[in-house]
Amino acid sequence: MRQVAIVGVGLIGGSFGLALRKAGFSGTIVGVSSERTIEKALACGAIDRGMTLDEAAESSDLLFLAQPIYAIMETLEKLLPTLGRNTLVTDAGSTKREITETAARFLPRDLFLGGHPMAGGEKRGVEAARADLFVGRRWVLDVNRFNVGHPAATVFRKWIREFGAQEVLLDPKRHDRLVAWASHLPQLASTALASAIQDSMPEAQTVAGPGVMDMTRLAMSSWDLWNDILATNSLEVGAALDAYISKLQDMRQDMAREFANGSAFAKSLRGENE
Amino acid sequence: MRQVAIVGVGLIGGSFGLALRKAGFSGTIVGVSSERTIEKALACGAIDRGMTLDEAAESSDLLFLAQPIYAIMETLEKLLPTLGRNTLVTDAGSTKREITETAARFLPRDLFLGGHPMAGGEKRGVEAARADLFVGRRWVLDVNRFNVGHPAATVFRKWIREFGAQEVLLDPKRHDRLVAWASHLPQLASTALASAIQDSMPEAQTVAGPGVMDMTRLAMSSWDLWNDILATNSLEVGAALDAYISKLQDMRQDMAREFANGSAFAKSLRGENE
Repeated sequence: MRQVAIVGVGLIGGSFGLALRKAGFSGTIVGVSSERTIEKALACGAIDRGMTLDEAAESSDLLFLAQPIYAIMETLEKLLPTLGRNTLVTDAGSTKREITETAARFLPRDLFLGGHPMAGGEKRGVEAARADLFVGRRWVLDVNRFNVGHPAATVFRKWIREFGAQEVLLDPKRHDRLVAWASHLPQLASTALASAIQDSMPEAQTVAGPGVMDMTRLAMSSWDLWNDILATNSLEVGAALDAYISKLQDMRQDMAREFANGSAFAKSLRGENE
Repeated sequence: MRQVAIVGVGLIGGSFGLALRKAGFSGTIVGVSSERTIEKALACGAIDRGMTLDEAAESSDLLFLAQPIYAIMETLEKLLPTLGRNTLVTDAGSTKREITETAARFLPRDLFLGGHPMAGGEKRGVEAARADLFVGRRWVLDVNRFNVGHPAATVFRKWIREFGAQEVLLDPKRHDRLVAWASHLPQLASTALASAIQDSMPEAQTVAGPGVMDMTRLAMSSWDLWNDILATNSLEVGAALDAYISKLQDMRQDMAREFANGSAFAKSLRGENE
């Protein structure tokens, strides 16, 4: 592989460039972003040069779309006319169903491999990019496409391992249902908790301990990012939110059971036995 | 001060003993607990010897009650007949209204100073005790009693500073209202989240990231501990829980506002400017 293009050089895109370099990739890393972002990405070594989307699509072996979700879908819609005949397209969108449906409508089946590197942070932008952002994190790939047979797919999957990430193969609909519970519901639970305290009892800060710090960390996330995620997974997120509200309403009936049940999940999540 | 007695030598009681020693206290540290706990507390150096409650009450200058909340109240009820005339009693109960009311009924006003060291951890028992458990943590004292004029109170407050903790003076009712929001509601939000995922979508573990880890850490807490806390603060906790449920129900109406509002609280909690 000689040239990789990163479309959207923010935290994820920039970290992909830095991780590629660290993993020993010796080809050219191209960035497609605003002029200001390209300057910052060049300065921190995440890319070697900037290009327009058309130039990058034509001349790269792999396109890594790391934009917000709706921007990824817009890119997919206009990519085909300039896309190189052997260029593989992958993405980093946090929901997968709508993106893979869009790709299926606008691109040949073999040229798109949907992905979701499960990494991030409160800080955004290429300034926050790190070569080790993906270490120990899961990287979901579309199970219906992962064995796409495209040579670039084989190289890309090898990089994921070299980044220290763990490949997880999932169907896009299944992915979206699981992240509704494991990621989107926790986000809403944190945002609602912080917002409820802010509205009703901001003075509670006086006695804040590590518990409320943990529980409000996600609440610092940006709405810009979450708007697209929640809009493209609204049915699954709505179902999870309803179940959470029911649980909060019902838990007074047998609090001991809820503590035992919640504790079982929390421990299992950490690989601890009961 | 020549002798301090720790009643209930668990995580908090044991850490108090270790912190006292580290702060240079050269008197005797006595433990009142089950035989098995006393053995473990002696082994890890948290206490110098075991005693019965009556012996400890008679011979100590300060009694530190670090039992579960209802056990603290039972101790307060039976303490007076054996309590030394100049012995100050303080406690580590996580709620303060019912405990201070009980103390007011059963002990002379000047002999009880309610307290709440805001420290802890998922691990319980004296085995988990650490001399630095209180470093950087708040230690709430009853604002109606802190200037009790008792010489032991002055020494005790100096120790709190030497432990690296920060004294916060609060009215017991006010304390219970604030911790309902800053501690008890986050606990219930975490337990309900973990329990809802466990009931509805335990497979979500497959795509778990750091967000859901943060949001389920508190869910590992023990019901044994929380039973007393929630029972002695049920009105305040109920009001906070209702407000949280309303917020979750209403947040779909203006999600952008909720993200901004929640983020403002989370950042303010961390001393960050907008």
